[in-house]
Amino acid sequence: MTKLKRRDILKGAALGGAAGLAVASTLPAPAYAKGRQKLKMVTTWPKNYPGLGMMAERTAKRIKDMTEGRIDVRVYGAGELVPPFECFDAVANGTADMYHGAEYYWQGKSKGFNFFTAVPFGLSATEMNAWVFHGGGQELWDKLSARFGIKAFSAGNTGVQMGGWFRKPITSLEDFKGLKIRMPGLGGEVYRRLGAAAVALPGGEIFPALQSGAIDATEWVGPWNDMAFGFYKVAKYYSWPGFHEPGSTLALGINLDVWNEFSKADKVMIETACKAEDNYSLAEYNMLNGRSLKQLIEKHDVQLMRMPDEALAKIGEISGQVLREAAAESTEVNDIYQSFMAARGEVSEWSRISDQAYWEARGLPYNF
Amino acid sequence: MTKLKRRDILKGAALGGAAGLAVASTLPAPAYAKGRQKLKMVTTWPKNYPGLGMMAERTAKRIKDMTEGRIDVRVYGAGELVPPFECFDAVANGTADMYHGAEYYWQGKSKGFNFFTAVPFGLSATEMNAWVFHGGGQELWDKLSARFGIKAFSAGNTGVQMGGWFRKPITSLEDFKGLKIRMPGLGGEVYRRLGAAAVALPGGEIFPALQSGAIDATEWVGPWNDMAFGFYKVAKYYSWPGFHEPGSTLALGINLDVWNEFSKADKVMIETACKAEDNYSLAEYNMLNGRSLKQLIEKHDVQLMRMPDEALAKIGEISGQVLREAAAESTEVNDIYQSFMAARGEVSEWSRISDQAYWEARGLPYNF
Repeated sequence: MTKLKRRDILKGAALGGAAGLAVASTLPAPAYAKGRQKLKMVTTWPKNYPGLGMMAERTAKRIKDMTEGRIDVRVYGAGELVPPFECFDAVANGTADMYHGAEYYWQGKSKGFNFFTAVPFGLSATEMNAWVFHGGGQELWDKLSARFGIKAFSAGNTGVQMGGWFRKPITSLEDFKGLKIRMPGLGGEVYRRLGAAAVALPGGEIFPALQSGAIDATEWVGPWNDMAFGFYKVAKYYSWPGFHEPGSTLALGINLDVWNEFSKADKVMIETACKAEDNYSLAEYNMLNGRSLKQLIEKHDVQLMRMPDEALAKIGEISGQVLREAAAESTEVNDIYQSFMAARGEVSEWSRISDQAYWEARGLPYNF
Repeated sequence: MTKLKRRDILKGAALGGAAGLAVASTLPAPAYAKGRQKLKMVTTWPKNYPGLGMMAERTAKRIKDMTEGRIDVRVYGAGELVPPFECFDAVANGTADMYHGAEYYWQGKSKGFNFFTAVPFGLSATEMNAWVFHGGGQELWDKLSARFGIKAFSAGNTGVQMGGWFRKPITSLEDFKGLKIRMPGLGGEVYRRLGAAAVALPGGEIFPALQSGAIDATEWVGPWNDMAFGFYKVAKYYSWPGFHEPGSTLALGINLDVWNEFSKADKVMIETACKAEDNYSLAEYNMLNGRSLKQLIEKHDVQLMRMPDEALAKIGEISGQVLREAAAESTEVNDIYQSFMAARGEVSEWSRISDQAYWEARGLPYNF
């Protein structure tokens, strides 16, 4: 189905519906008279998956509730309508109207997409928003996505992801050599340069691989999502801090023709719903990660394992190389990289003396 | 004007307006036909004040845009309709429909309100949202506010505030004795117990007081707002980390009768607009604080002054006392305190090994 045909069908449907009646009256067309729209949202997550999948459901529900059902967004889990990694193409070609997913899944189209999810040693969740909302990020994202006929917004965040589950402790850089670890994206590339064998496995395949010894270690998300998968049963060392995804932004992508047809009010509603969910989901991850971490340690004997400084500094250096090489792909990616790095420079020092320093002070020994 | 009368007037106005026409038709009453509402939002901020005042303006604009002007919220700066600290009463008694401000300004009514803005050694911005959205905070807030006929939402955050501007460096606990500092709320109470003379001054009066020597030090917000006030011209030591407001939530409070009359769609729109602004404003503070900090140091020779550990640990201990004493005010405040402290316990360890640890790692020496 081409974009044009699809658009015409939508318009036709609106005229035939009950809400179309008002168009014939002398009243100025109110919002509800613009036609009931049934939209399809495909996602890269299992249906109703805690956190990630619920971000999609809640965003769809907010849009439906705000429009009193006029914009009715149906959410499809991964594979229900299209396979997870084909969501982007499905929205670009009009098979679906929206997707909810992680932009780095489309890095095969442009490495620039990585910067709108998370990159190794990049920006934390709140820093990502500083860049996207107020540091020029959204404008570059719009430019990149428009090339594929898509408009995207931040619509969820997992916060800092954990460094992953290891069967043996990491005590030096030597321990990375030959390590078989599940780590996708640019984080996986960093691991490969440390001498590890990094592989990408879908969520559902990780546990059996870890259990059978096919892999020695895995990252997934954080305590809340990881506990549900039961990794603690087969790997006891839980590594921190995560460097590979310091605040993963999830995105709502919308077919650009569909987007352009929305009224101004509907555009504001959708953008507002995305920003609200972005906020709500980060808070959910922080609350439930905190709660789950306690359980992992107290009930499941998980050992927190801090990565040695020597390893972290080396990982930082390699991460810098990996990002520079990604930037070399095209002028487009380089523009994104430059803007991202400028924001990183501006917010890093602020994060250091604000949240980081506050938490350090709160962690001092005193009677509270 | 009583609440009942006011509500009747609103309903009457709706029937008399152009939008009322549709009520007489046979169509089911659509959203737009429920009556155009002109609502008044009073604020505790100067009109259009960067950050704080703009949170109110943007929230009002989102509501207006989403409803195509049907809900038309007019924003009043501090003193335009009522004095800043009378906003709460104005909304409670129906003089205004909404306020945007900081809940701790109403601590005279209940010390419980402090916990919904920020308390010394309490929760950071993202941790506040974890508690309010997912840790039982909103339910307790609703209960407290309902007693005054108000429904409130988080609708803005400044992030961690700076420790303030000092003319002389603080090197030990001795330096607090006799220090005249502008610091309102529970933070001021902590300072008084350190032997300082803490006073509350409205924003506009701080600079002359600091310049004349009437006060020796002041806190305000952070680099972005503080630079605009020019404190660096008369005090060169900029103290960090701020302990008194580790992530100040700003609130939109709505007259409960007005709230209850909204349709479900309008309720979702308003709540969504608040969550979006909460997100957008924190990102703005983080971006512009980062940028302004650079300028303060590079252009205005400001000296960053880290509070000594000895002072911070003592401040932590006193903060704990001050919060426990606030909780002793009533069962109501104690319930809020207990819930807040439970969330603090659950999220603290997660913050330590996630964002804090990640930023520590990012700050290691390596070539990026």
